[in-house]
Amino acid sequence: MPVGTRGAVKGLSPAQLAQTGTQILLANTYHLMLRPGAATIAALDGLHRFMGWDGALLTDSGGFQVYSLGALRRVDDDGVAFRSHLDGSPVRLTPESAIEIQNQLGADIIMPLDECPPLPSEPPVLAAAVRRTVAWARRSRAAHRRSDQALYGIVQGGLDLALRRACLAELVEIGFDGYALGGLSVGEPPEQMHAFVQTFASELPEDRPRYLMGVGTPVDLVRAVAAGMDQFDCVLPTRNGRKGYAFTSAGTLRLRNACHARSGEPLDPACGCYTCRTFTRAYLRHLILSGEVLGGTLVSLHNIAFYQSLMRQMRIAIADGTFDNWRRAFESGPAVRQSEEHE
Amino acid sequence: MPVGTRGAVKGLSPAQLAQTGTQILLANTYHLMLRPGAATIAALDGLHRFMGWDGALLTDSGGFQVYSLGALRRVDDDGVAFRSHLDGSPVRLTPESAIEIQNQLGADIIMPLDECPPLPSEPPVLAAAVRRTVAWARRSRAAHRRSDQALYGIVQGGLDLALRRACLAELVEIGFDGYALGGLSVGEPPEQMHAFVQTFASELPEDRPRYLMGVGTPVDLVRAVAAGMDQFDCVLPTRNGRKGYAFTSAGTLRLRNACHARSGEPLDPACGCYTCRTFTRAYLRHLILSGEVLGGTLVSLHNIAFYQSLMRQMRIAIADGTFDNWRRAFESGPAVRQSEEHE
Repeated sequence: MPVGTRGAVKGLSPAQLAQTGTQILLANTYHLMLRPGAATIAALDGLHRFMGWDGALLTDSGGFQVYSLGALRRVDDDGVAFRSHLDGSPVRLTPESAIEIQNQLGADIIMPLDECPPLPSEPPVLAAAVRRTVAWARRSRAAHRRSDQALYGIVQGGLDLALRRACLAELVEIGFDGYALGGLSVGEPPEQMHAFVQTFASELPEDRPRYLMGVGTPVDLVRAVAAGMDQFDCVLPTRNGRKGYAFTSAGTLRLRNACHARSGEPLDPACGCYTCRTFTRAYLRHLILSGEVLGGTLVSLHNIAFYQSLMRQMRIAIADGTFDNWRRAFESGPAVRQSEEHE
Repeated sequence: MPVGTRGAVKGLSPAQLAQTGTQILLANTYHLMLRPGAATIAALDGLHRFMGWDGALLTDSGGFQVYSLGALRRVDDDGVAFRSHLDGSPVRLTPESAIEIQNQLGADIIMPLDECPPLPSEPPVLAAAVRRTVAWARRSRAAHRRSDQALYGIVQGGLDLALRRACLAELVEIGFDGYALGGLSVGEPPEQMHAFVQTFASELPEDRPRYLMGVGTPVDLVRAVAAGMDQFDCVLPTRNGRKGYAFTSAGTLRLRNACHARSGEPLDPACGCYTCRTFTRAYLRHLILSGEVLGGTLVSLHNIAFYQSLMRQMRIAIADGTFDNWRRAFESGPAVRQSEEHE
């Protein structure tokens, strides 16, 4: 899922996104509730219509952004209180209001408010976050009013397998339409995240979508899919695109590098996206160096198409029973090197 | 002609531009010669291929931008010397080098270096600019090497009819593929520009394109077409679009105004562009207020489509012999009010 924080994937129109093979987008409840407000979006027939997006949508609960406000927010068992980053006005988010807002926005998949501590955190902090996340998940399930929206449960517990298992067991008992791994890619080294997902993914219910939140690089996705995960969101394709970093089948390409100044090659000769069919590296580099926003748009478009192609290749290989071979080829190829080059 | 200063119309892909009905773009020689350089673009098969633009292109001479550098440039009879705004390095532009650079860029229409004084200017300043412009036009004609590129002549002379006529007579004697009115919309009130064009346009050769440089608002275009002009370039559709000002058949629409906060209407119900088919005023306002570049892209797309529709309507009305009626309806309608609201 490309990320459309404020109801727009940065620089890309819905028509351009559809061309990349994107079927579902993520939008952030935190940003949309503050501006333009959930009631405004509801009055305009919901978020799909508002964004002009015919595909599927997922909204997060707003919790993750609120936690990143640091000293500006206060958490208790009832919910979180914070000040708007726009005008400083006080705002309160509870499990019930997070669901009500997402019912108003009308995404196809919605998420409950959870508590997401950074890694590493002390064991008591992780345990308290799990207790609160489960209690809030129960209240969220009870508050949910729309049968046309799937509600996922979010598993917390850091890298502590016993804690994760306890959290998951309680969530499964409440019953959700899908299960998400939260609290990963929040400070720990990628290898620890890979190892944890490798161990735990297969314990998530097999008959429900498995969503790894906020992940990641191409190699993160491949390893998580190999472990059994289905669904991902990440800002990397667009954030890196705006900086002039392209994900390609030959590894990361940095357009600012002088070697591309006269290159008549496309970003990725193996890619069939609009950017690769139409523009040279030299032109894209010129746009990025000149500060032309079109450069960020065109590289983002390619990066999203690259990610969607990666996911499509994996779906096909799984259906064909050739995923293990596909993965071996990927892990021994140059594209895997993108894992350490995303910042 | 929408303006693609650095080889890109700000925020819009060539595919999006083609959708607006755009057939020809303007690009600025000054910016492209400094970055990425004319030799680089020539090595990459020219500006059309570089920009990924299948339509027609016009490049200016670079002179207009150089004059706007003020104290940073020095003009003499041989040409202009200036310092690059990018790195301060000294650059020289002569009539010959301006043509050579444009021969390298490869646009379909190219322009000679001219001297363009601001208005008002003293009569001796205007007369000297005409003398230099004619001398440079003759040198430009002699330097031009590509028969597949049209070379226009630029008429200077301020608002002085005798001076303009003298300039034009000399240019016609040299012989150009089209004739441009330069040195207008450079500080004088719009009414003075309208009155001058009204008087002088019909004196330009009838069998050659007549190009009014750097103009203008919708009403500027309609009055200039009525006077006999054919061709225009202007940054207004894109610059205003990025600010959230939309040109519409009901006059200028300012998206920042609170009255649009919950509007489910398109920018212009009479417009069939992608933006108007897909998005509400409320959404576009949200993007502009949020600083999302997509907002500027989508409003620019509409504004360019609005301008192209205006020009298309005039072409049809002229061909049908109904232009006078069409113009009366336009001048008594709300769209004309956009003339005073472009900043």
